[in-house]
Amino acid sequence: MLDEFYIEELARKKFSFKSSSFLNGIGDDSAICRINSDKIVVSCDSQVEDVHFSLKYFTPQEIGFRALSVALSDICAMGAEPKFFLNSLFLPNKTSKKFVDKLFQGFNKASKFYNVELVGGNVCKSKSLIVDITVIGETIKNKYIEREGSDSGDFVYVSGKLGDASLGLSILKKKSIFNYREKLLISKYKSPKAKVSLGKFLGQSSFVTSMIDITDGLTLDLARLLGKNSPNKGACLVWEDIPKSDNVSGTSTMSSFMKSVFSGGDDYELLFTIKRKKAYEFDLLCKKNNFKVFKIGAVDSSGSLTLKKGGKISNLQADGFVHKF
Amino acid sequence: MLDEFYIEELARKKFSFKSSSFLNGIGDDSAICRINSDKIVVSCDSQVEDVHFSLKYFTPQEIGFRALSVALSDICAMGAEPKFFLNSLFLPNKTSKKFVDKLFQGFNKASKFYNVELVGGNVCKSKSLIVDITVIGETIKNKYIEREGSDSGDFVYVSGKLGDASLGLSILKKKSIFNYREKLLISKYKSPKAKVSLGKFLGQSSFVTSMIDITDGLTLDLARLLGKNSPNKGACLVWEDIPKSDNVSGTSTMSSFMKSVFSGGDDYELLFTIKRKKAYEFDLLCKKNNFKVFKIGAVDSSGSLTLKKGGKISNLQADGFVHKF
Repeated sequence: MLDEFYIEELARKKFSFKSSSFLNGIGDDSAICRINSDKIVVSCDSQVEDVHFSLKYFTPQEIGFRALSVALSDICAMGAEPKFFLNSLFLPNKTSKKFVDKLFQGFNKASKFYNVELVGGNVCKSKSLIVDITVIGETIKNKYIEREGSDSGDFVYVSGKLGDASLGLSILKKKSIFNYREKLLISKYKSPKAKVSLGKFLGQSSFVTSMIDITDGLTLDLARLLGKNSPNKGACLVWEDIPKSDNVSGTSTMSSFMKSVFSGGDDYELLFTIKRKKAYEFDLLCKKNNFKVFKIGAVDSSGSLTLKKGGKISNLQADGFVHKF
Repeated sequence: MLDEFYIEELARKKFSFKSSSFLNGIGDDSAICRINSDKIVVSCDSQVEDVHFSLKYFTPQEIGFRALSVALSDICAMGAEPKFFLNSLFLPNKTSKKFVDKLFQGFNKASKFYNVELVGGNVCKSKSLIVDITVIGETIKNKYIEREGSDSGDFVYVSGKLGDASLGLSILKKKSIFNYREKLLISKYKSPKAKVSLGKFLGQSSFVTSMIDITDGLTLDLARLLGKNSPNKGACLVWEDIPKSDNVSGTSTMSSFMKSVFSGGDDYELLFTIKRKKAYEFDLLCKKNNFKVFKIGAVDSSGSLTLKKGGKISNLQADGFVHKF
């Protein structure tokens, strides 16, 4: 069956070569391209009706804002600064002016929130609503962070709670009246914020060895972060150290809660690795700059993912959301 | 009813402002953005099943090649040099690996033909096939050509035959066995080539006052080229000077043939204006550099489009393909 991995491999095979103008090659969060003397950072990401969102749960404003946040997150994961975006809109028959007005209100709000300019776009009829966003950024002092640079021993960090978005979605599906804590989870699902300031800070730090944003689930994106080039590379995570909400949803079992934390997508937190010897210094620097970061484990040479929970070690599957056709 | 003009106006109202980083503002073929010290040129364009192409007439290779050509054409219309592209793919359920392989063969062929690098992309399930392409280019010696720079008196030029693509499509719809001349028209529809070399040449010429590529039809794109800012600006075209194929399709009446020439889309020829006093010099320069260009009329101050045919003057409607919802 066709899935996104097949297509990524196909693109790698046919186009992968790093070059003097395409510096990082296919497979990272964003492309680093040389234009004359400068490096630009480019990425595209889409929001598709009934795949990424349902019109049952989202207003058009929320879709516009979220589409930009999600696309920007890939620029943050390179440690770069987002500057411009383009929006390609695919609208179903009979889409109203009012709907499009509201969609643009969302783009406008996000554009101001993140200080990025809309510089282009495109529009066409389609069978369902699709918002495809391309974001362009710039490197700061020519620095950027790739995915696969970690070494055994490096600590694994994350920028915020995991599983919240996935829990938020499951609450949305079950109920229609929500308490305060449920609303927070739902908001994490519907309005994730791209970590622009933290991304720029990490991009300039010489302690950071690799970075990705968590789109499809912690374990799946951690496997991507470790990369395929070193098959012996693995990581051990510590359950108690992973930032997460309490299991608020009464109906959720421990195993489904753990599934949300390890393979629930849509969190858009940054996942990165820090040189072991620099971790103490890094933690101090984050505190000083008011950045909350969480050390959740370490890279090792086990070739697999493991979890330490209550002192016991078990295997972790790299699992998460995969586009299949 | 919602149409693309409404959405363009909406984007202009909410985001139009030119800035020190977004140099030309919304409404041109591509955006000119400043990244550090350099100017980059960005545009996106999509090919949507049953809007831009039908799988009855196109192989996946042809769709891939065409999607890139069409998107590149917008960079050519700025007089810039295309360098990189990203492909966002929206694939229906049960799309086969073979289909995707062939689509990428098309991207690969086009990538080599135009010497542009694939640097990113995205993939998601959707109800019909959509290929959304973002192209990034660079200006040469910091120069680029905007749409609305013409003055009354400037000559209007085009880079090649008009109406061919539209005639090609109508032949495809009518028949299944084609003679040599019909095949040429069909090829113009299925495999338009972006005018990269000519675009770069025109981009560097100080004689060129405005430029656009003909996507949606000669008259509609001419009206866009003249712009809305000077309501008195108009143009008179000379039928006999417009390059076009003979009316090969026996069943086509003169009026439907003229419709193909004036409002048939998909030709992707460059339409541009040249300072009147420099036209002779420009023609010589084009000959010397082996560029075929055709003087088809002149900008005037009539506030409308007119046609001179057989010595008689009549009005021309700005007509062509408009996305409606």
